Amino acid sequence: MSAQAETLISDIPAYVRRVGEQARAASRALARAEGRARDDGLRAIAAVIRREAAALRAANAEDLAAGRKRGLDTALLDRLELTDARIEAMALGLEQIAELPDPVGAISGLQARPSGIRVGRMRVPLGVVAIIYESRPNVTADAAGLCLKSGNACVLRGGSEAIRSNRAIAACIAEGLAAAGLPAAAVQIIETTDRAAVGALITLDEHVDVLVPRGGKGLIERIMREATVPMIKHLDGVCHVYVDAGADAAMAERIAINAKTQRYGTCNTMETLLIHRDAAAGLLPGLAERFRELGVELRGCEESRALVPAMAAATPEDWDAEYLAPVLAVRVVPDLDAAMAHIARHGSGHTEAIVTESWSRAQRFLREVDSSSVMVNASTRFADGFEYGLGAEIGISTDKLHARGPVGLEGLTSEKYVVLGEGHVRE
Amino acid sequence: MSAQAETLISDIPAYVRRVGEQARAASRALARAEGRARDDGLRAIAAVIRREAAALRAANAEDLAAGRKRGLDTALLDRLELTDARIEAMALGLEQIAELPDPVGAISGLQARPSGIRVGRMRVPLGVVAIIYESRPNVTADAAGLCLKSGNACVLRGGSEAIRSNRAIAACIAEGLAAAGLPAAAVQIIETTDRAAVGALITLDEHVDVLVPRGGKGLIERIMREATVPMIKHLDGVCHVYVDAGADAAMAERIAINAKTQRYGTCNTMETLLIHRDAAAGLLPGLAERFRELGVELRGCEESRALVPAMAAATPEDWDAEYLAPVLAVRVVPDLDAAMAHIARHGSGHTEAIVTESWSRAQRFLREVDSSSVMVNASTRFADGFEYGLGAEIGISTDKLHARGPVGLEGLTSEKYVVLGEGHVRE
Repeated sequence: MSAQAETLISDIPAYVRRVGEQARAASRALARAEGRARDDGLRAIAAVIRREAAALRAANAEDLAAGRKRGLDTALLDRLELTDARIEAMALGLEQIAELPDPVGAISGLQARPSGIRVGRMRVPLGVVAIIYESRPNVTADAAGLCLKSGNACVLRGGSEAIRSNRAIAACIAEGLAAAGLPAAAVQIIETTDRAAVGALITLDEHVDVLVPRGGKGLIERIMREATVPMIKHLDGVCHVYVDAGADAAMAERIAINAKTQRYGTCNTMETLLIHRDAAAGLLPGLAERFRELGVELRGCEESRALVPAMAAATPEDWDAEYLAPVLAVRVVPDLDAAMAHIARHGSGHTEAIVTESWSRAQRFLREVDSSSVMVNASTRFADGFEYGLGAEIGISTDKLHARGPVGLEGLTSEKYVVLGEGHVRE
Repeated sequence: MSAQAETLISDIPAYVRRVGEQARAASRALARAEGRARDDGLRAIAAVIRREAAALRAANAEDLAAGRKRGLDTALLDRLELTDARIEAMALGLEQIAELPDPVGAISGLQARPSGIRVGRMRVPLGVVAIIYESRPNVTADAAGLCLKSGNACVLRGGSEAIRSNRAIAACIAEGLAAAGLPAAAVQIIETTDRAAVGALITLDEHVDVLVPRGGKGLIERIMREATVPMIKHLDGVCHVYVDAGADAAMAERIAINAKTQRYGTCNTMETLLIHRDAAAGLLPGLAERFRELGVELRGCEESRALVPAMAAATPEDWDAEYLAPVLAVRVVPDLDAAMAHIARHGSGHTEAIVTESWSRAQRFLREVDSSSVMVNASTRFADGFEYGLGAEIGISTDKLHARGPVGLEGLTSEKYVVLGEGHVRE
């Protein structure tokens, strides 16, 4: 395993194109491989990762040392670190993916048509998936595992600060693939930290079928501006909980506290609490006290500040903010329509929840709120591939086309039509 | 109904943005409307179209006169013409769409999770669909009907040569929508023929969820270059039939003739015939004679020309050509792998068929050919929404994300997650 930080590549676009061509060729071999061979590959990679734990830690130590020298902050260095527990988690994660049912090959809806042909849909891999991510090197193993399971070749572009760790993990993956008789180019990492490689990768429509960017809003926005390859992505999570008139007060408090404080930095954390006018007086003072105890800063509209004078005044920017921090915007609304209008205007289409005892308002909220997850009487924190039973998660999509919401293995596949005839021609 | 050719609009981007905002608002009203109200709207529009047939023909006559004056060719003028039969077909088409099952609202896969929440997926409209098309004014009614049925608002941008016809149809649609109590902005046409309106529409990400361009390759390529809104589209149809060794000769001939000659100008017409070396000597001379009788020009590889010396020599361009005409490229290949490699290199991912008696080669072809429709012993001409039983077709997609192959009402919808709890929070 190489310890050098940089491979010298003179012609970046030509290099990325070659990687893409190799990925395309490998994707055809993967489409031929049986599910068992792909599962064997996943288990073989896990075994190599366990065996090479010391080498992985050594490569990671060099990344950490270089990062400290470059002055990376503590949070970033923490995300970058590969501990023994994290290495074991990578191996275990791959073994768990191997246990999931094969997401490709199934033919559904096969039906005979009046013409005599039989028509159905076969679930197939997308082909080549490119994943662009930041500091956590464990994404290298996780993402490669999900792509391999779903029969896709992948091209991985991690952060420059993790290049030595990612190379070391890639070497383990290559060994595992070879042991299972799968093509080495099924999983490739971009061997240069040059930013031009990202630009080349996200416009390589011919050889890349989908991009999965994983990282902060800045990374996603940069890629959105330049990419011509379609993406599975979410930009941000400005999630809402709306407490309806007549809601169970204890339930409303429990859900609001959980949606905000169970974790602050996740995209499914509540960022704005909307409360019906008739529920506010009874609920808001006590709830504000609970949030105060938990160290959450509240920023409210005038009507909520009339009930809780200690609350700071919200500015217009607060309604659009993804705090990812112990801060919560609070707004009192006159009715369900006003709550849904607020969500339509300020939400990011990620996850919204209503707390209500009203059957008809619950139905309206479910039907009319245009978000990737819509919930009744549950915490927004449930919006997660594992909680939804997908068995895995490559990301969360707030787009409406293709995958929407938490994206598991199915989102890395497509369905093609199959037509079975016995010499049929069209009249 | 106005007969003027052009509405003067000074600020095109502002105008298109206003249309988009109105469409977004209307899409929320449609999301609230019951399926029955949408079906009533479709039937009401059909009734107005029938009643206003004379007015539609009059508006169309003005388009035709202006088109003749501009020197449009006969084929284009024919596509532009609204005859009584075509007006009746528009009305009937809308009534047929009304009869289809409601594509939205269904919740599938609702399951209880260990946490206690129940998770399922609700099929919902995409929101706002923009359709950009060329001369046929009947697309105005068809596309509006499919969008209305699927609960989507739509913005229609037809060809400038059909602007008076499209306005007249839009007036009928508006009257039908009003009669059913649906918002007028559910179906809007772009009221200017200025090309800048297309540029504004295809980059209006905030208010348009998907573009459906319908027209020639030139139109699609122009839109692909500039659009930031995702598209449902196919660029071209370079479809293949591969005749395997040991294929039934009569079946192979029947399928090859049908796939090429049943219609020349459609995207699912065969453009290249691949024949296994062992089948070529027995099949090709007779087949070439049949094609000669039908007026189809063959352009072959050297090996096929050795069998049929009268055949013209294919140039490298022929392998990538979408003729849409009585011309067929012919190539002899040594085996299935060579046939699939040819398809991977030269195909457009639209539709490919194998004619074979081999079970295992049929399975390999179905699994490994990466096209939106893959067929065994059937003509490529079957690749069509009606033949597949979709009940309707908004277009055919050769993309892999979202809809693939013939796109019916389901392709105009998305699935969001719904989570049903009773006060559940995440541990």
